[in-house]
Amino acid sequence: MARLIEELRKLPGIGAKSAQRLAFHILRSSSEDAEALAEAVRDVKARLQLCSICNNITDVDPCLYCASPTRNQRLVCVVEEPTNIAVIEKTRSYNGIYHVLHGTLSPLHGVGPEHLRTANLEARVKRGEIDEIILATSPTVEGEATAHYLAGTMRHNGTRISRIATGVPAGSDIEYADEVTMTRALEGRRDV
Amino acid sequence: MARLIEELRKLPGIGAKSAQRLAFHILRSSSEDAEALAEAVRDVKARLQLCSICNNITDVDPCLYCASPTRNQRLVCVVEEPTNIAVIEKTRSYNGIYHVLHGTLSPLHGVGPEHLRTANLEARVKRGEIDEIILATSPTVEGEATAHYLAGTMRHNGTRISRIATGVPAGSDIEYADEVTMTRALEGRRDV
Repeated sequence: MARLIEELRKLPGIGAKSAQRLAFHILRSSSEDAEALAEAVRDVKARLQLCSICNNITDVDPCLYCASPTRNQRLVCVVEEPTNIAVIEKTRSYNGIYHVLHGTLSPLHGVGPEHLRTANLEARVKRGEIDEIILATSPTVEGEATAHYLAGTMRHNGTRISRIATGVPAGSDIEYADEVTMTRALEGRRDV
Repeated sequence: MARLIEELRKLPGIGAKSAQRLAFHILRSSSEDAEALAEAVRDVKARLQLCSICNNITDVDPCLYCASPTRNQRLVCVVEEPTNIAVIEKTRSYNGIYHVLHGTLSPLHGVGPEHLRTANLEARVKRGEIDEIILATSPTVEGEATAHYLAGTMRHNGTRISRIATGVPAGSDIEYADEVTMTRALEGRRDV
């Protein structure tokens, strides 16, 4: 029991109290439930891996996006986390593939360029396999710094590098836009 | 007393109860306060007017923006309401003048093109006095319809027509962007 509590405590956001409560719940649950949980934990490490092309979490390598014959393999959308892919997919307007950084530059937290998973993307750019890289990191301080860093390192003849638009969100009144967003909305204006 | 309640009820958002409460408050307040309120109501109509160039609310015609020698008088930012000017001014990055529509197209509420104050802007465009019109209506249904209508009617050789960017707001995680905003952020991506 002490060993289970110890292991549960290592999970993020789980303190001593929570670990104890979870452990007792597992103790009281059926053998099948406990076995299913143990199996799921083991499986996630045994079966899931990172796609060797785009770093997305996948059970087959390359992942479904990178292996898709109907997607434009020369258009790459760079995102911070695997969950961001769902946000882009929901638009139903993107037909390229992805590249997952698994983080952003954050000097204050000791996260430097060496911690970003960009080697495989850089190699593809150098081999001339990519027409456009869309930098879809968030317009936060860390996301902007990361986009700026990537724009510098990924520069290559024949590869367009673009950044998603910062601006007033759809459906929102400009009356509620903050100064930075409004400034970016004006700077990023497009001809109509 | 009944006349005052009647007049107060004509104000938006003031019902019978509120009008009565306000009227009694005025009755109980000092003569000076009542006089000051009456004076302020009279003055706002006597002194304030719409700028003949841009329709902004002003006490001098043309308004301070339209009369400013340091502003670019050939760059016009079109906004829905006079209060929107403050949002653009706060960015400290805009040096042109404004044009206030005093509303947006809203067919459901019976607001058609004839209700928008655009005649003076159209005349200036036709005389070739404007290099660029920035359509800064909100990215709402009404704001977009208005921008689309203006883009059509203001088209003129030598006048650039642009639209502020719709996208992920500055400082916000793309994880929280809705589909429409994310779609527009991708469409509106810019080369870096």
